[in-house]
Amino acid sequence: MQTEGVDSHRAVEELKELADLTGGPDGARRVAWTDTWKEARGWLRGKLEEIDDISEIETDEAGNLWATAPGDSERSVLLGGHIDSVPNGGWLDGALNVIGALEVMRALAPQQRPVTLRLVDWADEEGARFGRSLFGSGAAAGALAPDDVRGLKDRDGVALPDALREHGVDLDRVNEAGRQLENAAAYLELHIEQGPVLERMDLPLGVVLGTFGVERHAVRFTGQHAHSGSTPMDVRRDAFIAAARSAVEFRDDATRRDDVRATTGFVNVSPAIVTAFNGWCEMSLDQRALDADVLADMLASAKEASERIAGEEEVSVEWERLWRIEPIPFDDALIDLADEAITEIVGKSHRLPSGPLHDAAEMARLMPTVMLFVKSLRGLSHTKEEDTPEEDLELSVRALHRLAEKTIDLVASRE
Amino acid sequence: MQTEGVDSHRAVEELKELADLTGGPDGARRVAWTDTWKEARGWLRGKLEEIDDISEIETDEAGNLWATAPGDSERSVLLGGHIDSVPNGGWLDGALNVIGALEVMRALAPQQRPVTLRLVDWADEEGARFGRSLFGSGAAAGALAPDDVRGLKDRDGVALPDALREHGVDLDRVNEAGRQLENAAAYLELHIEQGPVLERMDLPLGVVLGTFGVERHAVRFTGQHAHSGSTPMDVRRDAFIAAARSAVEFRDDATRRDDVRATTGFVNVSPAIVTAFNGWCEMSLDQRALDADVLADMLASAKEASERIAGEEEVSVEWERLWRIEPIPFDDALIDLADEAITEIVGKSHRLPSGPLHDAAEMARLMPTVMLFVKSLRGLSHTKEEDTPEEDLELSVRALHRLAEKTIDLVASRE
Repeated sequence: MQTEGVDSHRAVEELKELADLTGGPDGARRVAWTDTWKEARGWLRGKLEEIDDISEIETDEAGNLWATAPGDSERSVLLGGHIDSVPNGGWLDGALNVIGALEVMRALAPQQRPVTLRLVDWADEEGARFGRSLFGSGAAAGALAPDDVRGLKDRDGVALPDALREHGVDLDRVNEAGRQLENAAAYLELHIEQGPVLERMDLPLGVVLGTFGVERHAVRFTGQHAHSGSTPMDVRRDAFIAAARSAVEFRDDATRRDDVRATTGFVNVSPAIVTAFNGWCEMSLDQRALDADVLADMLASAKEASERIAGEEEVSVEWERLWRIEPIPFDDALIDLADEAITEIVGKSHRLPSGPLHDAAEMARLMPTVMLFVKSLRGLSHTKEEDTPEEDLELSVRALHRLAEKTIDLVASRE
Repeated sequence: MQTEGVDSHRAVEELKELADLTGGPDGARRVAWTDTWKEARGWLRGKLEEIDDISEIETDEAGNLWATAPGDSERSVLLGGHIDSVPNGGWLDGALNVIGALEVMRALAPQQRPVTLRLVDWADEEGARFGRSLFGSGAAAGALAPDDVRGLKDRDGVALPDALREHGVDLDRVNEAGRQLENAAAYLELHIEQGPVLERMDLPLGVVLGTFGVERHAVRFTGQHAHSGSTPMDVRRDAFIAAARSAVEFRDDATRRDDVRATTGFVNVSPAIVTAFNGWCEMSLDQRALDADVLADMLASAKEASERIAGEEEVSVEWERLWRIEPIPFDDALIDLADEAITEIVGKSHRLPSGPLHDAAEMARLMPTVMLFVKSLRGLSHTKEEDTPEEDLELSVRALHRLAEKTIDLVASRE
């Protein structure tokens, strides 16, 4: 289907080609800093080399792969994605962005342009092997400090610096990749939603408002375990009951608010036997919101609820922060352009936050950024069951093409 | 302290002697069917052999040790206990009963009696090595079927029948121990409470109304896990939240009733990671009540609550029974006698159910039975921290002596 200069059908065929090359019955195997990932990138580089109007293909100090189609100005519009996957991953997470951008490059590179267009395949978005996600984009953005990751090892005990070196990356120089962003004026990224919202609304495409801020804590309740038969109900100091009541309140609080999340993940109790109530319980709470004030209020409410409940159950509670990141809103003007592009392609758009983080979050701190989401079936990702109808994938590539054209015009108008 | 013919001080000294012999810094080591248990029983047999008026000391087909002080009639009052302990156990659980009974035998054996008095040290009350508690009493009562336990192995792979054989017990003959109960007219047992009730009431002694019936189930909720960021609150099918709400309702239901128990013990969730809510949760529910109808109503209420909550949370729930036992009420006339005995010794009595099971539960199916409880400090047992003030232990031995006298009179009056 050759439409408006972009061959969205070819993009889907190339996604399948990549899946055949680097996937299999157990899903995608393109884990960063492995031979299969290197093979996937070699395949991508080959595709890029076939595009005549790409002037330069290079790998930067953080291992990110760049392809540049120069315009009248060095001011650049970036199309980003990541070809790496989790182990047993899906065929679309990351790869769609790269191959969608590849097709947009094919369509736009030959054209006369006021600004430069660049494709970037970020290194190690998933962090699947060493546990640090957004590696390449974080290094370029200056958010990743080499000393913070120097000690990371994979499950076989291989140190991150050694794995990087095998792929030509010197950990101490990764922040030099920042020079790639000097002339960047806008960042665009297409991704599968990885959630159920668009499918439930029966819409193929949506505009992403930004990535959620996250407050992630371990919440630990301590009472005193005792025998299930000999201990009357009114003298129990049951840590699990306090945790259970708190988890329900955390959930209910989030349900009452507009488009936020609160999730209890791990739950551990002790002594965890049938003949005793539990004197200790820890659980994780992961809270997300697009507005920093809302997120702070959610956290304060949860702490207050847990302390009130702990008092009622005569247990103690303590909170330990496991991780946090502030909300990263995307650019209003680009959000409007993305809305226009989607509406022109499919008639109707929808604005939604992103639950998962993306490389776009690193870029949004530095430049106007927006993302497009395409529907995920059953909200599944990071599994071989991850899927999106092919017609929707084609629509998403066409929308990215349309958004790239609009963004080039916007950046040019601001020169 | 020589009082009314029973030397309760000597009983405490002998408890310490036994603890020195078969305990240590990590607690009691008298696990049934081990050398240490055999050593403890040898020590007990030595003490019994010193009592002139004991006519016979024998070990029955189930490994229970019997000592008989004959009376005018063969109708017998039994004083029961168990010298075996859990690993790293306390100095009182089981041993108090045996040594209290030993002291009562010393006091009463020399006296002319209308009925026979017998001490029994049940084999393997705890089931610590092979997982089957109430072994000896269950075998004598006919409640233990050899085929049901033939396949049991300890953690080293030793089969129960082989361990029994080393201690002179032929599994296929254990039910022949039932002949020991042919002339039994009443069963008395003194035990530490293993709970906090008497300590909180500041009472040394109480009368046990019976052992709770138990309904023990695994309750499993199944929803669908998904990503904590990408999945809006209103589309989640969160199995843990359904379980947490149910656990709180199970607890609240028990709190509203009179002297029953409901306990969530193990709690397992999946996938149990910070970045997803849980699609699966199983937890144990252990419900206890002294009244069979109350217990049945508790179970029905809990099932109904779990199904209502599962419906609201759009998950499914299923129940699997892990174990059950009916309530075993003790004998009204003996409860009255025990109340009298306690009141005479300490001025005030209290009636309470037993949460844990005891050998008395096996006897109560066959003959009038009652138990005395003595205060446990902090409700602790099955740990080396298990303790009771020595003055209360002495009072408990005196109360057992008084109760034995009253029971002998009652049995004689019924001849």
